Amino acid sequence: MTRLYLEDFAVGQKYGSGKLRVDAAAIREFAAAFDPQPFHLDDDAARASFFQGLAASGWHTAALTMRLLVEGSLRPAGGIIGAWAEELKWPRAVRPGDELEVQAEVLAVRPSGSRPGHGFVKCRSTTLNQHGEPVQVLVMSLLVQARGAAG
Amino acid sequence: MTRLYLEDFAVGQKYGSGKLRVDAAAIREFAAAFDPQPFHLDDDAARASFFQGLAASGWHTAALTMRLLVEGSLRPAGGIIGAWAEELKWPRAVRPGDELEVQAEVLAVRPSGSRPGHGFVKCRSTTLNQHGEPVQVLVMSLLVQARGAAG
Repeated sequence: MTRLYLEDFAVGQKYGSGKLRVDAAAIREFAAAFDPQPFHLDDDAARASFFQGLAASGWHTAALTMRLLVEGSLRPAGGIIGAWAEELKWPRAVRPGDELEVQAEVLAVRPSGSRPGHGFVKCRSTTLNQHGEPVQVLVMSLLVQARGAAG
Repeated sequence: MTRLYLEDFAVGQKYGSGKLRVDAAAIREFAAAFDPQPFHLDDDAARASFFQGLAASGWHTAALTMRLLVEGSLRPAGGIIGAWAEELKWPRAVRPGDELEVQAEVLAVRPSGSRPGHGFVKCRSTTLNQHGEPVQVLVMSLLVQARGAAG
């Protein structure tokens, strides 16, 4: 797998991922550890909530998106290192049985002013369910090495 | 614990959390599941990376922040439901042995135009390590019920 340097990125490039299926047990396990709210843990409580049924924590969706990205075709030389996000939203909930994949597009590429030999690649990563509906949109700037950087 | 409705929120209010300690095993466990990159998994590889030592995935920091928020003093009536974030950054890495807490401040409160009986509370949540250094800043708008809303 070719590793990508700052010079290899250009606006409009697209990167993809494999697929990951999420079941109710995984939704509950993540929620128990990190987001223990009834609508992420219990079917009956979830039916009576805003979500009207068991829904994955948005942070679970974000974590699954990262997994898909790390194993996808976007492979910066130094790894996927998120510097900051300027947009993160969850247009619809992830439900038990959903199968997710990620489509990433490069929005901007620029050298770093303060960190010689590095730059930032701004990407929009859209996470889709098996119906092609977006469940997360993330616009994040990644810290990427330039070719021949000292490291 | 009093549950808070939209009318209970006002700009400048502050909410706090307990503390959570993160060890190397938890960092590796999260990374193996969601962010399997060498600098989150292996000490030697981490020393040679951008992070210069084992570092938690930013998404692990985000998930731990959610856990602290859910168990903290910010308690909207319908639960903590993130609608979207307009800022998410990790000013420094979370390291093995770090102890985290969260300070949240209300930045804006407004009714929803499209969802009667609900509104949005925009909060800045700053996650601090045991030295008082920020490891995450998140500006997120929460969906919050108004008092007497149909649900």
